[in-house]
Amino acid sequence: MKTVEIKTDHKMELVDITEEVRREVERSGVGEGLVNVYTRHTTASIVINEDEEGLLKDFLASLQRIVPDDIYNYLHNRIDNNASSHIRSLILSPGVCIPITAGGPWLGTWQSIFFLELDGPRRRSFAITILGE
Amino acid sequence: MKTVEIKTDHKMELVDITEEVRREVERSGVGEGLVNVYTRHTTASIVINEDEEGLLKDFLASLQRIVPDDIYNYLHNRIDNNASSHIRSLILSPGVCIPITAGGPWLGTWQSIFFLELDGPRRRSFAITILGE
Amino acid sequence: MKTVEIKTDHKMELVDITEEVRREVERSGVGEGLVNVYTRHTTASIVINEDEEGLLKDFLASLQRIVPDDIYNYLHNRIDNNASSHIRSLILSPGVCIPITAGGPWLGTWQSIFFLELDGPRRRSFAITILGE
Repeated sequence: MKTVEIKTDHKMELVDITEEVRREVERSGVGEGLVNVYTRHTTASIVINEDEEGLLKDFLASLQRIVPDDIYNYLHNRIDNNASSHIRSLILSPGVCIPITAGGPWLGTWQSIFFLELDGPRRRSFAITILGE
Repeated sequence: MKTVEIKTDHKMELVDITEEVRREVERSGVGEGLVNVYTRHTTASIVINEDEEGLLKDFLASLQRIVPDDIYNYLHNRIDNNASSHIRSLILSPGVCIPITAGGPWLGTWQSIFFLELDGPRRRSFAITILGE
Repeated sequence: MKTVEIKTDHKMELVDITEEVRREVERSGVGEGLVNVYTRHTTASIVINEDEEGLLKDFLASLQRIVPDDIYNYLHNRIDNNASSHIRSLILSPGVCIPITAGGPWLGTWQSIFFLELDGPRRRSFAITILGE
């Protein structure tokens, strides 16, 4: 398991971490297997899609429509003012598993892996775990 | 693979199963790898977030807002009155994979693993599968 | 890793791929482990639930309510008219991991694995990756 540290700059932000994952898979020497990318924060997620500027803004706006901001009357906000960040993270996922073949992650042409910040800016980390041979 | 049986008490409920997963990883003797937690029910999910009472209520209320209750006119309700439970389970996921390092699951301070009941109360089960060495 | 090619016939469609996954697990000879099913498209997902005709229609209708169609003013639609397909794929997941036990996938009676087409009709593919022994 390799951990990577990043710094986010905004309240909500998608950080492209594809190259970190690709490099770690290549470095491992594993030819066939699985790579897991995982974050242990409860107000962040790992997601995969196309790295197109307009689309990433559309996605963040959709998340805000699906789970309203903290102006909404959440119980958790009596303790900490970030219920919407937790709920968005819960609906998504803390991690993904991607197949490894021919020594690299089997990603599509348009697939990028993102660290999704939901309550930044903060110092964050994620782990890359590789299984296979 | 180890299966664990639980009993839920409510229609919708989050059961913290972190200790069952942690114990099974420690018992396995695996130092580095992945643990998968999976449910084979179609009206339940496995999710990860903070075990804070208000937040868990906020999350269930959000799910009910995102996918309306069965007062809504679902086709599946001609057969069985639980379409909303299935759809909520579909949008979430039947399982998660968590890295194992130093002989334990790599969970954050605020991360708990939950069995999410969406159509209880019922007897339920989930599986813990460990890969690594 | 085994890749499987399929052809979808509609804009949105759930294709049951359970038998392809089951057959590949049995063919592998792996008794205990994990099977990962993954798609490398950014307007498709892999999901698990009950293969009941009414429910599948309910699910697609719910997705369209949660993430509105492209009549909505998405930025990505200045480039390509499929923002809603990407956002739906992002909220779901490109893949799932299912435990293997006694030489087969540990699926519930009502669990089917689906390739979820979100921007068809198209030629598509997905990968089945098996780990274990």
